[in-house]
Amino acid sequence: MHRTMHPFDSAIALAPGASTGRFSGSTTPAYANMVGPFGGTTAATLLNAALQHPQRIGEPIALTVNFASALAEGGFEIEARPMRTNRSTQHWTIELVQAGEVAATATAVFALRRETWSMPEASAPAAPPEPERVPRPSLVGRPAWVSRYDMRFVEGDLPARFDGELQRDSRSTLWVRDEPPRPLDFASLAALADCFFPRVFLRRRKVVPIGTVSLTTYFHADAAMLAEQGENHVLGSVRAVNFRNGYFDHSGEVWSSRRELLASTHQVVYYRE
Amino acid sequence: MHRTMHPFDSAIALAPGASTGRFSGSTTPAYANMVGPFGGTTAATLLNAALQHPQRIGEPIALTVNFASALAEGGFEIEARPMRTNRSTQHWTIELVQAGEVAATATAVFALRRETWSMPEASAPAAPPEPERVPRPSLVGRPAWVSRYDMRFVEGDLPARFDGELQRDSRSTLWVRDEPPRPLDFASLAALADCFFPRVFLRRRKVVPIGTVSLTTYFHADAAMLAEQGENHVLGSVRAVNFRNGYFDHSGEVWSSRRELLASTHQVVYYRE
Repeated sequence: MHRTMHPFDSAIALAPGASTGRFSGSTTPAYANMVGPFGGTTAATLLNAALQHPQRIGEPIALTVNFASALAEGGFEIEARPMRTNRSTQHWTIELVQAGEVAATATAVFALRRETWSMPEASAPAAPPEPERVPRPSLVGRPAWVSRYDMRFVEGDLPARFDGELQRDSRSTLWVRDEPPRPLDFASLAALADCFFPRVFLRRRKVVPIGTVSLTTYFHADAAMLAEQGENHVLGSVRAVNFRNGYFDHSGEVWSSRRELLASTHQVVYYRE
Repeated sequence: MHRTMHPFDSAIALAPGASTGRFSGSTTPAYANMVGPFGGTTAATLLNAALQHPQRIGEPIALTVNFASALAEGGFEIEARPMRTNRSTQHWTIELVQAGEVAATATAVFALRRETWSMPEASAPAAPPEPERVPRPSLVGRPAWVSRYDMRFVEGDLPARFDGELQRDSRSTLWVRDEPPRPLDFASLAALADCFFPRVFLRRRKVVPIGTVSLTTYFHADAAMLAEQGENHVLGSVRAVNFRNGYFDHSGEVWSSRRELLASTHQVVYYRE
């Protein structure tokens, strides 16, 4: 018998290319955004190239993805290169090329972790314990990728009306998981870290052209924490830092159902007007 | 007449190499850290390679530096490559090689900014308005680079005694500028973003081996804001996010004397024990 592949696995699938570290992939309509694919799947696909690489050691600690242009729907090539391999850390440079032009670059740090003193400092936002009891917003008019997530907003969904009324802040808190459910792994966590709607839409209650230019995610989860999380909703939390002359940044966290930090994430986003 | 070069300018100085985008530089004892040079000068030197590149457009928006190994004192080579140049943005990959091995990699996004709607969301921490009235801590036993900054801690200096007593948080707020004073520019702002002492030393009141593995800075300042700031102290603010199995991350901000956000900055740091 043959189980259908989860749409996320199809979206980040890579075929080995002509030499070690080269892969080819393709965008999928299931994760389409306003222009091109959802950046989260692009980030996950770049990370996946390092994860699939035969010389990879350890697990992801840091991932930075730079979106050099909007991807077109269709095929692309990725090259992942281990730039330096130490005893317990490995540094990667990754490039995505489409139609002969660099469309995204990334760097990643992987490491073999050891058990040490551990302690949180940030704390998870207040949220009702049962995600299923928080209503799911309408998906009407939202791009395809939004339907690939089950999002339950505790606060800070997109406004019902974009009436241009300036808001005091742009905080959001939401329970979110893949739709249909899928066990959490590093690739899906990398994508989830980009699931927050553009803060400028919330703060200004206005839709303006936007595009993430750079996204950085730090992974606190290891494979055991991911396995424990499984298919449960994670708790996302995000707020803008500053909006200035065409670029704003936000910082967010992704918490496990047990309120352990799985990842922290930051991005800078272009906006017009 | 010949004015002496500021030690920061000596530290980040690059000589053009054999081809466009190649440069050579050298560490300087003035910015020595416990092992190798201060990471802030390494970050600034990598950014400087893009700033000096003849094909560069615009000003820095985002910089990510991955420290692949501790630099040795001495010379190194840098190559900065514009991977994609759009109408108003440019994406860079930068590598630092020492003794034939990659010691650091970086990516940067530059952009030509336009005036748009702008608004802060995070706010500056409380601090006395006159930095000179805040006492300067002793520099005894601290590495050389610390003396290259005039730091005035409003809260969260290193403890007087490392007695191992666990603290509730690791927040720091400080007025800081180059020592001797130097007009702020993008390179010195990139270095300043790394001037926060390791959060694990504060939280645990314990010194353990540490090393930044990845540093990301988002620039909100443009050249006009930097010129207005001049040689004045900036206000730094930082806190840890999470410590887990060998890696912790922190997030911070660098504010102007007028309390405008110059940069936000994030890093993930290796620690032992």
